[in-house]
Amino acid sequence: MLSQVAQTMHKFVKQCENKQVLNLYNQIEQGKMLRSKLILLIAGQTPQAVELCAVVELIHLSSLLHDDVLDEASTRRGKPTIHILFDTKTAIMLGDVLYSKAFSQLSLIHKDVAYCISSAVTALSIGELLDIELSKSFNTNQELYMDMINKKTASLIEASTKSAAILSNKDRDKFAIYGKSLGLSFQIIDDILDITQNSETLGKPAMSDFKDGKTTLSYMLLYQELSNDDKTKLKSYFKKSLTKDELSWIKNNMTKHDILNKTKQIARQLAQNGLNAIKNEQNKKLFDIINDILNRER
Amino acid sequence: MLSQVAQTMHKFVKQCENKQVLNLYNQIEQGKMLRSKLILLIAGQTPQAVELCAVVELIHLSSLLHDDVLDEASTRRGKPTIHILFDTKTAIMLGDVLYSKAFSQLSLIHKDVAYCISSAVTALSIGELLDIELSKSFNTNQELYMDMINKKTASLIEASTKSAAILSNKDRDKFAIYGKSLGLSFQIIDDILDITQNSETLGKPAMSDFKDGKTTLSYMLLYQELSNDDKTKLKSYFKKSLTKDELSWIKNNMTKHDILNKTKQIARQLAQNGLNAIKNEQNKKLFDIINDILNRER
Repeated sequence: MLSQVAQTMHKFVKQCENKQVLNLYNQIEQGKMLRSKLILLIAGQTPQAVELCAVVELIHLSSLLHDDVLDEASTRRGKPTIHILFDTKTAIMLGDVLYSKAFSQLSLIHKDVAYCISSAVTALSIGELLDIELSKSFNTNQELYMDMINKKTASLIEASTKSAAILSNKDRDKFAIYGKSLGLSFQIIDDILDITQNSETLGKPAMSDFKDGKTTLSYMLLYQELSNDDKTKLKSYFKKSLTKDELSWIKNNMTKHDILNKTKQIARQLAQNGLNAIKNEQNKKLFDIINDILNRER
Repeated sequence: MLSQVAQTMHKFVKQCENKQVLNLYNQIEQGKMLRSKLILLIAGQTPQAVELCAVVELIHLSSLLHDDVLDEASTRRGKPTIHILFDTKTAIMLGDVLYSKAFSQLSLIHKDVAYCISSAVTALSIGELLDIELSKSFNTNQELYMDMINKKTASLIEASTKSAAILSNKDRDKFAIYGKSLGLSFQIIDDILDITQNSETLGKPAMSDFKDGKTTLSYMLLYQELSNDDKTKLKSYFKKSLTKDELSWIKNNMTKHDILNKTKQIARQLAQNGLNAIKNEQNKKLFDIINDILNRER
């Protein structure tokens, strides 16, 4: 079914009737399609659900194109990013083309779904602004961090599961909670992988979050545990290109204070909230997918 | 009525529930609201028409935010652009917030209108990509230029007049032609003003198009008239910061070959096509607005 989603995305891009757009699109590596997997599991494998998947994946892709410009990221999914392959202007405009094409198709699917998904894009974009703000200094406020990842990552996943419920006449509120919880735990695991995995597995530089100004949950939990001297030391490493020894110091302290397990425990608790919301659904795969997210290594 | 449009825009931005977004928005100078004037003239001054106006103006504003990043413009409407006041990232994301908020509101207005307007944004964004492509070298192909301004400028004006006709049960095809023709002539006049007006009137640097790689219609018409030596000379001026003498050489040759009148004649002919499409409408103001565009000096 995911190949049908990819085909539909390709069809939508082709309908834009511009060779450059199609050419650029063809150079982008397909992602894991988490949002599509969720939509198809909830709404069933109908033509309308496949269209919704294609729309959501195009929106996700557009957000990544703009996000990569913002983060000045040079690789994504193991390949050079569009703004590196071409330029910033092309990445912004390709994002705008795909965003608007997605919105056009959305208007043909379902009114409530159109409102739900486009509102999520507003939240997502505000999440990006919050991310920029938070990245300006060492952030120790967990609430601000959770609000940011809720908007930046969870909002579109929540809108996807909610929209899938709308299309299939299921309880949209319960599936919204499921999607939101899953989205939050997905992002927290993602932030852990930046610390534990190598660049080959990640398809982007390893341990780059902290260097890029992103004080993710593990760094906040670590900060709480450190002595005042070590707090100052950790802060002094913020947004720097660190040496091997300095990186080891961070990792060793994370091990010493069992930080990654503590972080994972928070992700697990969030995932459990999501599972509780849909506990009456006879859909084992919706449970499995959360376990896949918690145990993923890339 | 235009103040009601501005109020509705403000309400929509406030609904995004983010102080930074509202603060950024408040720093942007309001434009001429051409698209709103057209919508209200065609659809009448109904609450639904006002909402459509606010949506279209937000979309227009978002496109300008991204356009200014692309063009590296430092002033717009006589004020510093957002990406200069803050940074590129903020301008891109504010554009995304306002785009998506506009699409959310659009989904509540009318299905056909939502499809029409969002498709225009795709065309508009492709127009920006074409503009970047054309700006890479001295372009003498009028057809490519007309296709580019049709997408970049006329598409949203066409979608506005067409949508206004949809909302008021008028002939959408005729009003689409009216909007498209008016949009094309609007852009051609805009390109003339870059040559004839000073920076104070323009709210941005004067005669900057050619320096920015934009071989607008007047430059193409001039090129046709020049001797081979002068053709080479004009080409050598392309994308350069020119001296007063070099700028005068261009202006004098435009005068000598009556270029600005010839360009204006093309704009006038396009406007006439638009008027022919709606000749049976008893709406004098739709005629007046085209004359205002043809005779405008800023």
